[in-house]
Amino acid sequence: MKLPKNVTIKEVGPRDGLQNEKQLVLSEDKIAWINSLSETGLSYIEVSSFVNPKWIPQLADASDVLKGIKRNKGVTYAALVPNIKGLDRALEAGIDEVSVFMSASEGHNRSNINKSIGETYPVLEEVVKEAKMAGKTVRGYVSTVIACPYDGYVKPAQVREVADRLFSMGIDELSLGETIGVGVPNQVERLLDELLPHFNASQLAMHFHDTRGTALANIVKSLEMGITTFDSALGGLGGCPYAKGASGNVATEDLLYMLHEMGIDTGIDLNLALKSAQLIERTLGKSLKSRQMEILRAEGKERIS
Amino acid sequence: MKLPKNVTIKEVGPRDGLQNEKQLVLSEDKIAWINSLSETGLSYIEVSSFVNPKWIPQLADASDVLKGIKRNKGVTYAALVPNIKGLDRALEAGIDEVSVFMSASEGHNRSNINKSIGETYPVLEEVVKEAKMAGKTVRGYVSTVIACPYDGYVKPAQVREVADRLFSMGIDELSLGETIGVGVPNQVERLLDELLPHFNASQLAMHFHDTRGTALANIVKSLEMGITTFDSALGGLGGCPYAKGASGNVATEDLLYMLHEMGIDTGIDLNLALKSAQLIERTLGKSLKSRQMEILRAEGKERIS
Repeated sequence: MKLPKNVTIKEVGPRDGLQNEKQLVLSEDKIAWINSLSETGLSYIEVSSFVNPKWIPQLADASDVLKGIKRNKGVTYAALVPNIKGLDRALEAGIDEVSVFMSASEGHNRSNINKSIGETYPVLEEVVKEAKMAGKTVRGYVSTVIACPYDGYVKPAQVREVADRLFSMGIDELSLGETIGVGVPNQVERLLDELLPHFNASQLAMHFHDTRGTALANIVKSLEMGITTFDSALGGLGGCPYAKGASGNVATEDLLYMLHEMGIDTGIDLNLALKSAQLIERTLGKSLKSRQMEILRAEGKERIS
Repeated sequence: MKLPKNVTIKEVGPRDGLQNEKQLVLSEDKIAWINSLSETGLSYIEVSSFVNPKWIPQLADASDVLKGIKRNKGVTYAALVPNIKGLDRALEAGIDEVSVFMSASEGHNRSNINKSIGETYPVLEEVVKEAKMAGKTVRGYVSTVIACPYDGYVKPAQVREVADRLFSMGIDELSLGETIGVGVPNQVERLLDELLPHFNASQLAMHFHDTRGTALANIVKSLEMGITTFDSALGGLGGCPYAKGASGNVATEDLLYMLHEMGIDTGIDLNLALKSAQLIERTLGKSLKSRQMEILRAEGKERIS
């Protein structure tokens, strides 16, 4: 197998993970969690989202959280920004990197941001331009890269078109979101076969949800195709908005186990990551469902040091 | 990706799955479950084990179960057989295929069957010979093909030596067991790189436990290397004897989802498999942990028809 020596993991738990939790988490608890994440060796944490607080009450405290955390110089702190208003808030709070987002499918784009894909481009273009002028790097997110809960399968060419537009705006990296966790490795291959002739593998990240247990298999296929950046959430947080109770993002700790066992370096300490997962587990008051957390419970290590 | 068109799934839930359940399941409940499995399109079911009933009380009723089930002509009913005494019982009960088993590592072999590897060969040789004379096909199982809970990593050459001996005895197929669920795809590749120059891919099956969530990724790598037979257990039954409460065999229904979505035919109806999983779930009185079962619960489909 052709495998990279190093992989970058971008922790999206504080945003994509908590966003799906009904129970409101206190800002101070989020801050404590992000501070513990900052000590694991992670180089990137998506801390929150500067969408309209009415849309996602759980993340209404984005500014407080970003201002409250203890910054680790080795970590990039990022957040989602839907528009100029959100960008102003994010910049004021001292964000390191700005993430803009849209979907590859009309149905999900409309449902998620209430605009057609065509109407979304100019909004994002303005955000990217302003963020760049403020000296920030920008990450693009494209959702539903394999299938959409409304429109069904999404053609790789459709994803390429969105990717083209976002890179033309000046984004630095594009995260390809398999939002509903239905994808399998040969579909990932088909998608990357369409994208890799046009974009550098180092500018692409894969964002898998593990709803059907295929995320690690999809990551291995991506690795073999040259992708070296992956999004994940500690504890597999994130759920599935289309099947409440089902699994969420691929769990950071399960991904770490696999990568390390494959001889791939991430710079992250698995034990510290597990400790951080147990912290947010206590905050949420529920058992996190990753395999690594299951094993800790099976071994009676409910609170590792 | 080079993928096969068809894959054979061998259901090991009634043996490898139930073997790990503390609560004794009634013979009539096992029979009802196996009968429902026989209607899913599965072509192979491992129904029980003819080891000394004192070793595994849960499977002490192997003869009653085998005699009690309704035979589907399209299904091969198999069971584990440790010695001639077990073989006599299995033949008397009308077994279709005999499975002999041992480990690739001394530590696990001693712990599991109380003999050294060298002492095990003649015992199995006699069973294979007698089973063949009785007109039965024989499957070999070799455990701990990647790592052993006692001896650590297992060298692929060690697995090849055991495989050589078993095929020399006349077994028809060898199932390679990743018993403790620690393996990752490049380790699977290393193992198969050692074995495939010597044995036909069609004579090898892979048996993955999903303790660390890597089973589907390992299966995809095996598929790409030409393996077309996989063991799995409905509902991910099986647990991990070395970490009570952790996950067991790769779940048949999650494997079915992935294979079908990849365009690979198994001949098995996923919906009937899920129905059968819900049957054993009710018998055991506990929620099974596969992703497909999680999704059904999330959708409120606790009892599909």
